[in-house]
Amino acid sequence: MAFDAIETPFAKIDKIIGGSATYVAYAASNFIKPVQQISIVGNDFPQAEMDELTSRGVELEGVEIVADKKSFFWSGKYHNDMNSRDSLVTDLNVLEDFNPVVPDSYQGAEFLMLGNVMPKLQLSVINQLKVRPKLIVMDTMNFWMDIAMDDLKEVLKKIDVLLVNDSEARQLSGEFSLVKAAKKILTMGPKFLIIKKGEHGALLFNENHVFFAPALPLEEVFDPTGAGDTFAGGFIGYLAKTKDISFENMKTAIIVGSAMASFCVEKFGPERLKEITKADIDERLNEFVQLVNFDIDLV
Amino acid sequence: MAFDAIETPFAKIDKIIGGSATYVAYAASNFIKPVQQISIVGNDFPQAEMDELTSRGVELEGVEIVADKKSFFWSGKYHNDMNSRDSLVTDLNVLEDFNPVVPDSYQGAEFLMLGNVMPKLQLSVINQLKVRPKLIVMDTMNFWMDIAMDDLKEVLKKIDVLLVNDSEARQLSGEFSLVKAAKKILTMGPKFLIIKKGEHGALLFNENHVFFAPALPLEEVFDPTGAGDTFAGGFIGYLAKTKDISFENMKTAIIVGSAMASFCVEKFGPERLKEITKADIDERLNEFVQLVNFDIDLV
Repeated sequence: MAFDAIETPFAKIDKIIGGSATYVAYAASNFIKPVQQISIVGNDFPQAEMDELTSRGVELEGVEIVADKKSFFWSGKYHNDMNSRDSLVTDLNVLEDFNPVVPDSYQGAEFLMLGNVMPKLQLSVINQLKVRPKLIVMDTMNFWMDIAMDDLKEVLKKIDVLLVNDSEARQLSGEFSLVKAAKKILTMGPKFLIIKKGEHGALLFNENHVFFAPALPLEEVFDPTGAGDTFAGGFIGYLAKTKDISFENMKTAIIVGSAMASFCVEKFGPERLKEITKADIDERLNEFVQLVNFDIDLV
Repeated sequence: MAFDAIETPFAKIDKIIGGSATYVAYAASNFIKPVQQISIVGNDFPQAEMDELTSRGVELEGVEIVADKKSFFWSGKYHNDMNSRDSLVTDLNVLEDFNPVVPDSYQGAEFLMLGNVMPKLQLSVINQLKVRPKLIVMDTMNFWMDIAMDDLKEVLKKIDVLLVNDSEARQLSGEFSLVKAAKKILTMGPKFLIIKKGEHGALLFNENHVFFAPALPLEEVFDPTGAGDTFAGGFIGYLAKTKDISFENMKTAIIVGSAMASFCVEKFGPERLKEITKADIDERLNEFVQLVNFDIDLV
């Protein structure tokens, strides 16, 4: 949970609520309650934002508030293609000493989403859980591959689903072909691998199976910040709602994640996620069905 | 119909049969016979290759053989990502004075595929046909947008389906967003637009409808040469076989085109296309069904 400053080719905002956990919670809470949040903020994090999350069934007992520090702050500028960006400022602030503690009331959680933080912290959360969750999903990024690959590989051994983008899959595996990369990563721990390709959709790999989910072709991407986290939140939220972790159901969960991400990019930060209704989500899911459905009589 | 020399990060071949018309014919002849070819070759084009095409139902009356010249020759080298390439040699040879003549026996053709050549030549073929075909599909490229945009726009007014890649769609429309690009291009003549995105699949646009077909995730792309032409051949071949030019059937035709293209890249030039059977095609189409099929109960 954090603050972001975002500049795109179209617009600019100096301060907006952000952070992986925020986006995951906004997306997942459309499908499952409660969402039990673990995070850390400073004295500057608005109570109104906390209340907004609480009203959606997000429990905040695991969110530490540090009285004498500021929340994590990130500032970034997107390039014209909206697929790449430069980080301008990264102020760790409260994140410097983050030591996540799982509240007793969270014990027994069946679905665990590990947002993109230091692998050691992800491992700590897993180790604090007395009963292993039914499904552990992990997000990570190239930065941790650069500076904490050994820790990251430890976490990989303990999870079920890994979420990375295409260049991260290549970095982690040392393979350029995504099919070869997936095969290698599936020997490192996770049984399922999701490779996110931004505007080009996402691939789900499991054993010898592969599923492809497109991204919705949009007239405009207003702000891609948080799209990956929103995807993750929709994905695990749908799985938690349906309590079915088969490959078949994960296909649907990826479509749900893609639909949620397609909302996220329509406005700055999580603004659009705060507005959407169940009817909006159903309509968007139907657009995905139309987008990829075809009839075929074999030749 | 031409000769190519191809270098990829994996292998190299000094001379192999190529050319848009060759790939289109190999792909389309799996679905419809006859394929009535219009092209030009020199005195060096092997009779065995002609016979191979004839045996598949490809009629060659419209293929001019120039006794004192050589066939078109292109040589290219692919970069490591296999998505981009440098042209090393382009010897026009017979193409310099190509003046396509539609044989009388080709009159009445219901499906016309205009391969990627000078727009003036595409226009000439359209104008020679006494009865307008049921469907005219056109391929083109950035090169013609650079040097013959006015001619290209003339052809656009007379066709039904335009095939371009993503950067060409952006160049033709002046829009970065592919959705906006598509809207603009659909005002220029064609009722349908297919935007090919290589390993990221293809989009079909028509009025307010959009369909997305993925590319099959492959362990290795051995040689991408001709994949776009093979896609086009599979697409129009399937439409000609089914005689149904609705948006719904074009969705299926794009999947068929993608399946054919996925074979093309497995070996040098059209080698793989010469080997495959009806059973291979059916199996590959089934892989596409598996790749994108999902069940969804709306939220």
